[in-house]
Amino acid sequence: MHVNELDTPALVVDLDLLEGNIGRMSEYCAAHGLSLRPHIKTHKMPPVAKMQTGAGARGITVAKVGEAEVMAGAGLDDILVAYPVWGGAPLKRLAELACKARVTVAADSLEVAAAVAQAARAAGARIGLLSEFDAGMRRCGVQTIEDLVRLSLEMSRLSGAEFLGFLFYPGHVREPLEAQAAELERIDAQLREAQDRLYRSGVAVGVVSGGSTPTAMHSHAMKTLTEIRPGTYVFNDMNTVTIGAAPVARCALSVHVTVVSLAVRGRAVVDGGSKTFSGDLLRGGAGRGYGYCLEHPALTLEALTEEHGHVSLEGSAASLRIGQRLRFIPNHVCTAVNMHDEVWVVRGSEVMDRWPVEARGRIR
Amino acid sequence: MHVNELDTPALVVDLDLLEGNIGRMSEYCAAHGLSLRPHIKTHKMPPVAKMQTGAGARGITVAKVGEAEVMAGAGLDDILVAYPVWGGAPLKRLAELACKARVTVAADSLEVAAAVAQAARAAGARIGLLSEFDAGMRRCGVQTIEDLVRLSLEMSRLSGAEFLGFLFYPGHVREPLEAQAAELERIDAQLREAQDRLYRSGVAVGVVSGGSTPTAMHSHAMKTLTEIRPGTYVFNDMNTVTIGAAPVARCALSVHVTVVSLAVRGRAVVDGGSKTFSGDLLRGGAGRGYGYCLEHPALTLEALTEEHGHVSLEGSAASLRIGQRLRFIPNHVCTAVNMHDEVWVVRGSEVMDRWPVEARGRIR
Repeated sequence: MHVNELDTPALVVDLDLLEGNIGRMSEYCAAHGLSLRPHIKTHKMPPVAKMQTGAGARGITVAKVGEAEVMAGAGLDDILVAYPVWGGAPLKRLAELACKARVTVAADSLEVAAAVAQAARAAGARIGLLSEFDAGMRRCGVQTIEDLVRLSLEMSRLSGAEFLGFLFYPGHVREPLEAQAAELERIDAQLREAQDRLYRSGVAVGVVSGGSTPTAMHSHAMKTLTEIRPGTYVFNDMNTVTIGAAPVARCALSVHVTVVSLAVRGRAVVDGGSKTFSGDLLRGGAGRGYGYCLEHPALTLEALTEEHGHVSLEGSAASLRIGQRLRFIPNHVCTAVNMHDEVWVVRGSEVMDRWPVEARGRIR
Repeated sequence: MHVNELDTPALVVDLDLLEGNIGRMSEYCAAHGLSLRPHIKTHKMPPVAKMQTGAGARGITVAKVGEAEVMAGAGLDDILVAYPVWGGAPLKRLAELACKARVTVAADSLEVAAAVAQAARAAGARIGLLSEFDAGMRRCGVQTIEDLVRLSLEMSRLSGAEFLGFLFYPGHVREPLEAQAAELERIDAQLREAQDRLYRSGVAVGVVSGGSTPTAMHSHAMKTLTEIRPGTYVFNDMNTVTIGAAPVARCALSVHVTVVSLAVRGRAVVDGGSKTFSGDLLRGGAGRGYGYCLEHPALTLEALTEEHGHVSLEGSAASLRIGQRLRFIPNHVCTAVNMHDEVWVVRGSEVMDRWPVEARGRIR
């Protein structure tokens, strides 16, 4: 089937670009001796996770236990839950999973770490633990080296769990290359100090897990780092492009829509809105719309209501007709994919497959 | 089961409040001789649609053919697709649906109307048509009375279809009561003129369909109006509250979350982010956060990342602990529900039922 025979709105993944993105990240990690543990939040699809591990990724990262269950069910057997798991039922499910797959959890409190260890003991399982450090994003993670050392020591004493090392997420690092390297080196020095102190206390820090898509290719600036967890790089999006981490030509997922109304002068309405693209603005680029039109870059997807995309024709010579198809690269591909039950997979213009977004909605 | 035994994040619907909201809108419409045709985009759940028709709604409104299919499958038999349906497969499915249920489509172009009529003829079905007028929102709808009359006349000549009347969506009307009434009267005068002109051409306008949640209770200001299509009123949300259309005490759906991190001073992290609440800002209230905390109104849900809600503790005396549950009224309940596969239904604090969000993801 030709891609233009798909009903719209539809998410379409270009397999050649996807393979290229996966391959480049694997090569970078291999060249620098880093483990790659991609975050599956971006795609939530077992076939993509398997392509990633097939290309050399050591395992995967998830946010929620439900996502881990989907991935383990598809054969992924080394899973980091980079999220403070809480609640009797999720902890029990996590421990059951740890009987079948290698499971690690990141936590920034003894409450969460102890609850994870207790669930592991109850299930006769063993769960790895990472202590989370806030490198500057101010979301999760302990704030000081002292707290990181203290939490890590406490974790190392929990039976049922195995303290493995540190986790941080450099989500605040979005500057150009030179500034990035300086910030990564600052984080590196802090983690090195915590690592040294723990070593002197007899606790080994075998894992230092970091890495986002924007910083991924500068990870070698950090000597303590052992693995990175980029997510968005599989598809890329306009956030990635805007920050300079990938060109539009490496955006592997596009939203295919159809013009359904031209009644308002200077505007076209396409059949996808915030329930198709997600309503996420471009990071640091408010006012620049909700996607990049591959056919007519001068068109602006200026507003989204739930099922309508409002396209401004101002400044574009494009002459649109009802029924015309357009392709947009979304601002934020992770939240766009999360809107959908399926994506279509193409080579060139030929539809090769349909992949369910199997872990979508697995929020617990 | 007690509601606090639910794993979080979870959407929880208060059945008493839901019944109250549905009852009040039905009573208003009955008192003013208006048909009620609620838009199911807000809930996407057949049990809620059936409560609405059970309380007197004439039928329902949907955006997409897939939503209509789900609702027809559950026994809803009078469905308005308030969206320009396009594409061979969706049109064919629409016409098949029209063999089983009463189906009407709104369109603002002859292209779409003719395609609908052709699909109806091919299936041996009959589909109702409404011509869409842009009352000021500048999204869909013809722009002038002249164009509305012309399109309606063209629609009335299409075999396979039956021209029924006008549709408009007063989504731009968000002012307080007095200004609303004036704007609704302005729209009313335009539609009256179009109706008169068509009458003189021998074409009856039996339906004038309008009405949003903010304007619903002022609909009687429009004499031409025969039906209204509010959606959000079933649950209400902080947008509804902010515009003054309902108090917080009538918000029937809340997002239940758990505090999972307190590592960053002045901040708490809860286990729901933009993939739980949706990232929609408060309309006209940017900077006021992503939801209203029922337990601690002074807490601000100041930022969302995909799976983390960033709660600011500044200005609140609340002392939170890890594992503590909080309930938030979301900014935009339609997009919040659309994130989820299910909601939990309570009377008081007792969980009575689990409803799948069955039409979620039916975007074509």
